[in-house]
Amino acid sequence: MRRSGFFQDLLSTLFERRPWRGTQAPDAPLETLCEDLLGGRGEISGMRIGAAILDAYRDLDADGRRRFFAYLTEDMDLDADAVEAAAQAYRIDRNAKTLQTLADAAEPRRQELLRRLNRLPGATAALVRMREDLLAELRAEPSFTRTDLDFAHLFSSWFNRGFLVLRRIDWTSPAHILEKIIAYEAVHQINDWDDLRRRLHPADRRCFAFFHPAMPDEPLVFVEVALTDAIPNSIQAVLSEDREPIDVGKATTAVFYSISNCQTGLKGISFGNSLIKQVVQDLSAELRNLSTFVTLSPVPGFTKWLGGLESPEAKAVGEAVTAALAGDTGQLAEVDDTLRRLAADYFLKSKRDDGRPIDPVARFHLGNGAILHAIHARADLSPAGLKRGAGLMVNYLYDGDRVEPNHESFAKDGAVVASSQVEALLRG
Amino acid sequence: MRRSGFFQDLLSTLFERRPWRGTQAPDAPLETLCEDLLGGRGEISGMRIGAAILDAYRDLDADGRRRFFAYLTEDMDLDADAVEAAAQAYRIDRNAKTLQTLADAAEPRRQELLRRLNRLPGATAALVRMREDLLAELRAEPSFTRTDLDFAHLFSSWFNRGFLVLRRIDWTSPAHILEKIIAYEAVHQINDWDDLRRRLHPADRRCFAFFHPAMPDEPLVFVEVALTDAIPNSIQAVLSEDREPIDVGKATTAVFYSISNCQTGLKGISFGNSLIKQVVQDLSAELRNLSTFVTLSPVPGFTKWLGGLESPEAKAVGEAVTAALAGDTGQLAEVDDTLRRLAADYFLKSKRDDGRPIDPVARFHLGNGAILHAIHARADLSPAGLKRGAGLMVNYLYDGDRVEPNHESFAKDGAVVASSQVEALLRG
Amino acid sequence: MRRSGFFQDLLSTLFERRPWRGTQAPDAPLETLCEDLLGGRGEISGMRIGAAILDAYRDLDADGRRRFFAYLTEDMDLDADAVEAAAQAYRIDRNAKTLQTLADAAEPRRQELLRRLNRLPGATAALVRMREDLLAELRAEPSFTRTDLDFAHLFSSWFNRGFLVLRRIDWTSPAHILEKIIAYEAVHQINDWDDLRRRLHPADRRCFAFFHPAMPDEPLVFVEVALTDAIPNSIQAVLSEDREPIDVGKATTAVFYSISNCQTGLKGISFGNSLIKQVVQDLSAELRNLSTFVTLSPVPGFTKWLGGLESPEAKAVGEAVTAALAGDTGQLAEVDDTLRRLAADYFLKSKRDDGRPIDPVARFHLGNGAILHAIHARADLSPAGLKRGAGLMVNYLYDGDRVEPNHESFAKDGAVVASSQVEALLRG
Amino acid sequence: MRRSGFFQDLLSTLFERRPWRGTQAPDAPLETLCEDLLGGRGEISGMRIGAAILDAYRDLDADGRRRFFAYLTEDMDLDADAVEAAAQAYRIDRNAKTLQTLADAAEPRRQELLRRLNRLPGATAALVRMREDLLAELRAEPSFTRTDLDFAHLFSSWFNRGFLVLRRIDWTSPAHILEKIIAYEAVHQINDWDDLRRRLHPADRRCFAFFHPAMPDEPLVFVEVALTDAIPNSIQAVLSEDREPIDVGKATTAVFYSISNCQTGLKGISFGNSLIKQVVQDLSAELRNLSTFVTLSPVPGFTKWLGGLESPEAKAVGEAVTAALAGDTGQLAEVDDTLRRLAADYFLKSKRDDGRPIDPVARFHLGNGAILHAIHARADLSPAGLKRGAGLMVNYLYDGDRVEPNHESFAKDGAVVASSQVEALLRG
Repeated sequence: MRRSGFFQDLLSTLFERRPWRGTQAPDAPLETLCEDLLGGRGEISGMRIGAAILDAYRDLDADGRRRFFAYLTEDMDLDADAVEAAAQAYRIDRNAKTLQTLADAAEPRRQELLRRLNRLPGATAALVRMREDLLAELRAEPSFTRTDLDFAHLFSSWFNRGFLVLRRIDWTSPAHILEKIIAYEAVHQINDWDDLRRRLHPADRRCFAFFHPAMPDEPLVFVEVALTDAIPNSIQAVLSEDREPIDVGKATTAVFYSISNCQTGLKGISFGNSLIKQVVQDLSAELRNLSTFVTLSPVPGFTKWLGGLESPEAKAVGEAVTAALAGDTGQLAEVDDTLRRLAADYFLKSKRDDGRPIDPVARFHLGNGAILHAIHARADLSPAGLKRGAGLMVNYLYDGDRVEPNHESFAKDGAVVASSQVEALLRG
Repeated sequence: MRRSGFFQDLLSTLFERRPWRGTQAPDAPLETLCEDLLGGRGEISGMRIGAAILDAYRDLDADGRRRFFAYLTEDMDLDADAVEAAAQAYRIDRNAKTLQTLADAAEPRRQELLRRLNRLPGATAALVRMREDLLAELRAEPSFTRTDLDFAHLFSSWFNRGFLVLRRIDWTSPAHILEKIIAYEAVHQINDWDDLRRRLHPADRRCFAFFHPAMPDEPLVFVEVALTDAIPNSIQAVLSEDREPIDVGKATTAVFYSISNCQTGLKGISFGNSLIKQVVQDLSAELRNLSTFVTLSPVPGFTKWLGGLESPEAKAVGEAVTAALAGDTGQLAEVDDTLRRLAADYFLKSKRDDGRPIDPVARFHLGNGAILHAIHARADLSPAGLKRGAGLMVNYLYDGDRVEPNHESFAKDGAVVASSQVEALLRG
Repeated sequence: MRRSGFFQDLLSTLFERRPWRGTQAPDAPLETLCEDLLGGRGEISGMRIGAAILDAYRDLDADGRRRFFAYLTEDMDLDADAVEAAAQAYRIDRNAKTLQTLADAAEPRRQELLRRLNRLPGATAALVRMREDLLAELRAEPSFTRTDLDFAHLFSSWFNRGFLVLRRIDWTSPAHILEKIIAYEAVHQINDWDDLRRRLHPADRRCFAFFHPAMPDEPLVFVEVALTDAIPNSIQAVLSEDREPIDVGKATTAVFYSISNCQTGLKGISFGNSLIKQVVQDLSAELRNLSTFVTLSPVPGFTKWLGGLESPEAKAVGEAVTAALAGDTGQLAEVDDTLRRLAADYFLKSKRDDGRPIDPVARFHLGNGAILHAIHARADLSPAGLKRGAGLMVNYLYDGDRVEPNHESFAKDGAVVASSQVEALLRG
Repeated sequence: MRRSGFFQDLLSTLFERRPWRGTQAPDAPLETLCEDLLGGRGEISGMRIGAAILDAYRDLDADGRRRFFAYLTEDMDLDADAVEAAAQAYRIDRNAKTLQTLADAAEPRRQELLRRLNRLPGATAALVRMREDLLAELRAEPSFTRTDLDFAHLFSSWFNRGFLVLRRIDWTSPAHILEKIIAYEAVHQINDWDDLRRRLHPADRRCFAFFHPAMPDEPLVFVEVALTDAIPNSIQAVLSEDREPIDVGKATTAVFYSISNCQTGLKGISFGNSLIKQVVQDLSAELRNLSTFVTLSPVPGFTKWLGGLESPEAKAVGEAVTAALAGDTGQLAEVDDTLRRLAADYFLKSKRDDGRPIDPVARFHLGNGAILHAIHARADLSPAGLKRGAGLMVNYLYDGDRVEPNHESFAKDGAVVASSQVEALLRG
């Protein structure tokens, strides 16, 4: 039983606030509006001008956006000479005034622009979309990365873990949130509302998402969990349409089988680690018999890595995958052991230049302090699973007391902690 | 009727989250913990170390706090040489890497420390209290102002207007919020719960507060409003215990008769202006007959200013106030006109060095775009009202279309816009 | 902005209460359990026994249910002799004791049984389903109608208008409620979630439902509303997939185009009238320009009535409908005028034995005080619309001041109030 | 973490609904209005007429109310002849029609009147107040008891346990609820808001209340609970202002030290038993170490019973109480053993004519299945505690598995189950 509803009400106001759309936009070029907003006509005009900027931005085409980003990058940059002078002044006399001058000089003007835009109700989501546009231009125009640094800096402050809100997502959740879960699921596609229902509704299924109070309609990241009585060895078993739900009170194992980041515009602002930890904590408190927290994860870099090998084994596997994609999994069944042995190699011995594992999912979970617990062949026979990972899936195990030392040793030198059964594959 | 409760639920999680208290603190000096937190042992250890820092800080005595602030100010400062070098490098080659280096160098390390502390649930309120402690030391140790700059910078980002939530406070509000309203009321003291009830419960009374989602138990600023059928000329009339509530549907005037900032630790982060504007907007939408939005405000700087005058009039007023404080308001009644004329002088002709009015409340409302509408003598006969303002109160009028031009002209050159009746006093 | 969340929280407890399922059922025949429950072993055992009864009932097959209903009807009936004796005693000495004896005697024992079952959390919904089962048996076993009287009597008390809660249903509503809207829509079928979205999400569409606090997962009745700038003359226009939403602020007309009762087990407990009135009131308060409240209603009894006519016109219409059902609406277009004239006859001149209109939808809206405003041909070309109503739809108009007199004159003698344009059809 | 907020929202609508006040009342005598309401002018006029009746009733003086109750009792009674005839008809031919006729005849017309009044928003609370007025007249006019039977019958249906909502009351609860807790506390007076805070705010204190969705502003019954590490032997210890809260996680004992019914108008509709059981269930689920659920209860009938004794012991006790009331508790200290022995007599051997204990609190808890666990002298030294119970308090223990057999044996023959230490007092 909750203690009070007052706190829940707070957010309703956010939701009910009139958004910035619909404001009549002052009829001035975007750049002029930006200068006006920074020019200190104060908060009153500020709200109006800010709304005009966001309106105008929204109506830009791709060329217009590129011009705007160039403007942010070059015209709204800091003045390196001024920084140098301010740094000298501060070195000579370290006081609040010289420090303030230095802080002002060292911050690109676009940062304050973004901060002022963010004062508008609903602006946070608009700025996240703006960064999504920006990220799409970085390859073509790397100089925009300088502007991206400022977005990333501010978002990291605004989307501070302390401000995020964890919510359970289930079949009683609002439809407009659920349709986003369908859209954002990045690992194992959700086909339609019936498929979604199967993932959310059974008593032995859970889904959790982080939200930010200023973007209550948008999940930031979500995780899908299956409560089971054993560590699963394939996604087919987890998602089977005919399976019988188990008695949740007897579940021993929570399987994190899908983690999806929802907001491209929040790239690099990491939520997944916090989400897993919070969910582990909450599920532990709710279900006393849970003792094992484990993922069932894809191996997205495997096939590409395999393609770089020249061994007959690698070739055999490649052919088996091709056959499986064409509908015949017979060959694949014959190379199970080979595949698992190759995968052990892939995770434990093959490294990037920086000494970290090649697999991005591995880097994520090992970086969080999990261990590589088991490797399963023919564990994801979907086209995507075959193409990227040759049907392989793995379990990363989050083992309470060992998470911190694992994390630290991985952070230090990229050491991959694996279970003895995985280690044994190397010697197999 | 609201559309959905999902959004209100988001906050409940914030509220229900285990706070950082009660964490077992690692047994290490505070400075070591701070270095550890910045040292990148990652988010896992980070939460534990952060909790230890906040725990340890809470247990410090005054000396300990000063040592900690000195540590933040000196040891966690930026390195001016590094900034200079980075600025030079960026001038020569403006790219993301050189910019990132410069940004890192130019930010005192304490900023990142505060940001990481803020990841803990409940930490925002703890940091606001920490700054309250810091502010109390600034007079004795001005160098700490450098640290305060970083607090102010971060708070201004975290307490961005776009993140704030407006809530009506009334007699159905939670008691623990209401006891804070009693405690924080800074203008016209609330004596007890019965007094509070008289301010909140009648249909023609309103109270609104801003909250931040990460501090849902703490109002940031609140305003008390009386709905009336005329602009009031004394606080006695507004707060009278026997008055009859009016029919709200017929109210023409919303009187903002008390605005209180609640968090000393958020000094300089301005909420009052936004609050007034939002409340004007909301009340307008709710009550169609409302057309006048006006304050009934104290004149806190008047008596001090008067004390600096040497005219016989000033002396007579001074004596009348002394008598009134002793319980005899007869003399005060005789100097009504004098007082109002002097007040017109005080507001319109006497200025600070920067050309702004002496009165802080005047600077606030005129800066927001209000005009000085009327001056009332014997309008606040409480001891505080007599001591600070010789019993004077004034109305500042927020007049929709004129707010923006008023604000801009005041922002430009400190021009005080007053009604013709106030202007006339000067010529009286 | 709402005043408080406390009240909303109340319901959460209902929702969170452990339901009666899962209770270990005492191993006794259903009839014994019922006697035990009435036997006054008090509330403690009562909850356990009640749960056992509901569990046991749920597991019955059709035969078992019929035996149980027979038991309720015969064994749990009142004793007419006892009533007679008690009535005599009360006539002789009218006091509380004799009255209590009479009241006890005159109430079939099954009423108290149902009341005690209803003490269990979640039992109300179970009893509504039980009555649904019962209603299905009435035709085969009319004696069960006596038991149904007691269900109806209690439900009418429990589902008292004063206990119902109106909720807006929109795209932010919980999915498990929305899937029931899809399932329960009885007038214009909702094909899938996309179709539902088109009905709920556009700004100019509304949906409202009544709920009972003890069955928060089950809508009782809901109405779908289109906000328009004119009275619509066909459902195709209202539900068109390509239509552009209109500016809600400018909407003049609220069109109730579908009203569906959701709970078969609540048959005869009327909610529709209250729902329409409450929605009219709420929409009026929200949208100031709304001045016309009108339905777009089917004419479900028309085709059957038409089949009883022998005129050449009737025959021509019949053939046109057959052609339209086969995909060719050409003929139908030619009999528009005929159809509308026949419909005027159907509504205004043809009556049931009790003097009321033949059409059930007409009886509902005219009984609520609406007038028959307009008749449209080719207004519903769906198979259902053609089969039941020959493509006809009509508008019933709810005209504020005239609702009460309309209602009373209809209640008195079945007088059908129609607009002059409908009246004119008769003379056409 | 809760699953959804939709359900909580349902109630908000109840709260937001315009109440029946303010409706313009038709200008007709109250009796005429009642006949109109029953006369079937339908729901539309019904709401208006119902509001007029409640308005008119509210404005009645005491004489007017008595006339109205006499009207309900006599004019709105049933017709015994009609009942007799209907019973005969039903005996001869048991069908739905004859049963309906009998049911209609056997129900006093005032029942349907009350049911129709209850359709108005807010009417439930008004009807509860009406019954409160009625109860106050019963002694003077016993015939009104016949009307009271109908109120009681309907309330027992409307306030069915299945419709009630349990809410925790704490320092974050709405002030307007808390002021009612202060007002309604019937056992140990709450002096002011500070006193209330001491009862609600500490982590080792709890308070729970039942609410009905149709009266969300009014608690029906509430219980105050202290979480302790031992069974307390005096209220002074429980309510001491200086006590240190204990660590709730280590609490072994939940002490129900005050249970108050709030609504006089709901007399005879028992909530206390359900409340205790629900709270035991909820606290058990929350706090795993709780194993003892016990009351600390007053002994309100003791002093009066003692006054009827003529033994020297009884006299000595009487004098000690008189001295204690005058401020000197020395004598009382000397009769501790005597008092406890007498109390054992009072509870275990002295009975009412119906064989039940004299003490009403004992009848309540023993009837719920508790046992008399311990008797404490000088356990409530407040004036009320001394006057009613000579300073005695007792613990009733709710012992999970034994509650049901205890309840049944008490229900059967009034057997008082006591602990061996209490039994021993008899032999002392």
